[in-house]
Amino acid sequence: MFEIDERRLDRWERRAEWPLTGLAAVFLAAYAWQVLDDRSTPGLHGALEVALWLVWLVFAVDYAVRLTLAVDKRRFFTAHLFDLFAVLLPAVRQLRVLRLLTVLKVLNRRFAGRVRQRVGVYVAAVTVMVGACASLAVLDAERHHPDATITTFGDAAWWTLTTITTVGYGDRYPVTWEGRLVAALLMVGGIALLGVITGTIASWLVERLSGVEGSVAEAERATLAELRLVKAELAALRAELEHRPGV
Amino acid sequence: MFEIDERRLDRWERRAEWPLTGLAAVFLAAYAWQVLDDRSTPGLHGALEVALWLVWLVFAVDYAVRLTLAVDKRRFFTAHLFDLFAVLLPAVRQLRVLRLLTVLKVLNRRFAGRVRQRVGVYVAAVTVMVGACASLAVLDAERHHPDATITTFGDAAWWTLTTITTVGYGDRYPVTWEGRLVAALLMVGGIALLGVITGTIASWLVERLSGVEGSVAEAERATLAELRLVKAELAALRAELEHRPGV
Amino acid sequence: MFEIDERRLDRWERRAEWPLTGLAAVFLAAYAWQVLDDRSTPGLHGALEVALWLVWLVFAVDYAVRLTLAVDKRRFFTAHLFDLFAVLLPAVRQLRVLRLLTVLKVLNRRFAGRVRQRVGVYVAAVTVMVGACASLAVLDAERHHPDATITTFGDAAWWTLTTITTVGYGDRYPVTWEGRLVAALLMVGGIALLGVITGTIASWLVERLSGVEGSVAEAERATLAELRLVKAELAALRAELEHRPGV
Amino acid sequence: MFEIDERRLDRWERRAEWPLTGLAAVFLAAYAWQVLDDRSTPGLHGALEVALWLVWLVFAVDYAVRLTLAVDKRRFFTAHLFDLFAVLLPAVRQLRVLRLLTVLKVLNRRFAGRVRQRVGVYVAAVTVMVGACASLAVLDAERHHPDATITTFGDAAWWTLTTITTVGYGDRYPVTWEGRLVAALLMVGGIALLGVITGTIASWLVERLSGVEGSVAEAERATLAELRLVKAELAALRAELEHRPGV
Repeated sequence: MFEIDERRLDRWERRAEWPLTGLAAVFLAAYAWQVLDDRSTPGLHGALEVALWLVWLVFAVDYAVRLTLAVDKRRFFTAHLFDLFAVLLPAVRQLRVLRLLTVLKVLNRRFAGRVRQRVGVYVAAVTVMVGACASLAVLDAERHHPDATITTFGDAAWWTLTTITTVGYGDRYPVTWEGRLVAALLMVGGIALLGVITGTIASWLVERLSGVEGSVAEAERATLAELRLVKAELAALRAELEHRPGV
Repeated sequence: MFEIDERRLDRWERRAEWPLTGLAAVFLAAYAWQVLDDRSTPGLHGALEVALWLVWLVFAVDYAVRLTLAVDKRRFFTAHLFDLFAVLLPAVRQLRVLRLLTVLKVLNRRFAGRVRQRVGVYVAAVTVMVGACASLAVLDAERHHPDATITTFGDAAWWTLTTITTVGYGDRYPVTWEGRLVAALLMVGGIALLGVITGTIASWLVERLSGVEGSVAEAERATLAELRLVKAELAALRAELEHRPGV
Repeated sequence: MFEIDERRLDRWERRAEWPLTGLAAVFLAAYAWQVLDDRSTPGLHGALEVALWLVWLVFAVDYAVRLTLAVDKRRFFTAHLFDLFAVLLPAVRQLRVLRLLTVLKVLNRRFAGRVRQRVGVYVAAVTVMVGACASLAVLDAERHHPDATITTFGDAAWWTLTTITTVGYGDRYPVTWEGRLVAALLMVGGIALLGVITGTIASWLVERLSGVEGSVAEAERATLAELRLVKAELAALRAELEHRPGV
Repeated sequence: MFEIDERRLDRWERRAEWPLTGLAAVFLAAYAWQVLDDRSTPGLHGALEVALWLVWLVFAVDYAVRLTLAVDKRRFFTAHLFDLFAVLLPAVRQLRVLRLLTVLKVLNRRFAGRVRQRVGVYVAAVTVMVGACASLAVLDAERHHPDATITTFGDAAWWTLTTITTVGYGDRYPVTWEGRLVAALLMVGGIALLGVITGTIASWLVERLSGVEGSVAEAERATLAELRLVKAELAALRAELEHRPGV
């Protein structure tokens, strides 16, 4: 009984994976369109809004179905707390930028399978994706504020770049609390991501320049392998001594 | 004689721990109330001020009692220099923000027992606590200065975020010397704390993405364990050779 | 047939190396002259422009020749994608600052042979070269914009310094999209480079002050060498036991 | 002949050490007085100027004497290039802030002997000393410029703090090229120093919180020691086998 049910949850998640990825891409496109094409007719704007809410609804239904299918509901609940917040919080109009987090998560899962083998490429791609979403979100939040300094996508992208690198000239900065929320998420997440990139470039530079072929971790693994050979050798020696008739 | 006295100091510290933690929480709450509710009646403001001074007095008495109970007074004095400054400096009206350091220290000790097992969660919680205290302190220092750019708690929290991440847009910055003292403490302490967080996120990302299961430290420990097995094997081999009648 | 052709590519690259290095130096000098001496007569300005375009043409011809000489054209194409962009993109007038990337690459290859042995000196020299090129490029892009804050080489150099160290005061910052493109390249590349420098200085300081003679990597290598001696010892022991007549 | 001469250089350096340290302290005090007490009478100002030049002269004479005493003059010249610059450059009025570098170097050598055992304390002390000198130098350079934003020692210290931590609000920044030269030196040197401090705090935090007693380096040393015991054990075993009469 137990086994069958968890298998049903697994099957649902496997089947829903592709449609949800597609919907995440649709959501991102519709959101980008709505934010970038600010002067669209009310009809088009309304249609995009409906599309965004429909995608949200599908994600909400997906969460409900998974919770229903799970046998150990308490464990599912605590393990997928982030999913719950991602469904509940965007229901508040002001926090709809948080829906982008779910979209990023779904797209990331799809994308990870392909390029995970090359960490550098993968992290760079994720950073570009995070940066693009942060630019859209901050533009959406700031655009219509009277004191805003971020009013075009170019401004937003430039602001994202100066923030993620911690340069922070201060020629552009968010003034609304929604924009500052986006900034807070970008700072904590983006600085870590860019830290990985510059750290990778830096250690690659040092290794290549100093002619060091392997890292400490590799040397450590070589030591361990060597040690296991020594142990096997010793065991063989002992076995030989024990079974020799002449001794 | 020696033993008995140091035991008395220990017993005092163990007994005073819980009341002092409670008082630290009271101090933080009263300080936050006084700073955030700026338009309170003079009566309420005065009552909060009295409460703050009473807590200070209890901490001062605690220091005096501990110094009296200690047998090796010179050693206690040098080992608890920070406690002395935390008692003496806030007596100057301008430096009362420094009392927050003592409060943070006491609350931190209580809090550490619970979540120390998970470094990431613990550091994040401490960072939030430090950030909240710095925001309160800088707001308290800046608010009434004519050139101040930090006049609400939202501004103060935003300033703390841009400072702790070293982004520093420059749309908000302290202009009083008290505010700059808070900034100096936040910069040195907060940057280290956030460095731990982004460093943890970055190394977690790299490890997870590159499929490395263990760290260098773990591999090192495995090597050491393996090596001890080899040594034991060798010792057994030697013992066997020595006690064999046939050899 | 195969072998002969790849040999022809190699021979071309070896022969073209010195002339291309010379041309890269000429390009850099002409570009610097054109940017710094803004009030030159139209005749001189035109002559420099022609010189820049001629150098570009030689680089384009070099790429075409190499592609023709290569046998496995697909592999050459994917392995030298950067070279293709460096040839195609500067054909657009707005992107001519990108030509500096090729120049940097060629000069770097020449320069690397000499001082590669001392990582610190090498990285410092590359950083200065990158900084000088970024200053020239941003000055070229910004100078004639009405809102520009970077209008002299001194301003540009100062902006480069505050950007590369992520200090970012915000007294100088690019406002054109070309200038921001230069800033983006400088941030990603320059921060990694300066990270290597400050990291090297920092670890040198720590090592020198704490009196630690060797690093973890050296200790690891010593362990591995020791372990190989142990293995050889064991093998000798086993061989001895096997060939002894008395056993 | 050779030996005697190099011994004379050594003897001179040992004898000159204390007087030069004293002179460096005098220079720092006179420089600080001159910069901080801007409204002093012309007579006092002139007296301080003479004192500064006299100290400079003593350092120049010291360099000349050491060059004369050295036998291998070429090697002395290249090994002490920094000393030469520190003597020649401040002769230009505009570059006298560079004399502070010599002072820092001499004071540092004295100071190092005492607290080198505790890296953290030492680096913190050096950072404070560098910060104080940079504040004095930038104040000296900026103070009388019409567009200056750094006009008091408080401003200068605050600017130093925001620069060294790379926060860079941009409320204060140097506008003269001398001030920017000080900023460049502070950025490269100071960021590395503060990197050591925050890095030390961060790794101390992580180690203390995660309950890890030793570092990787210590584990590595333990492994090596263990391995040497294993090797000794093996050698003993082999020796025993060879010299046994019964085998």
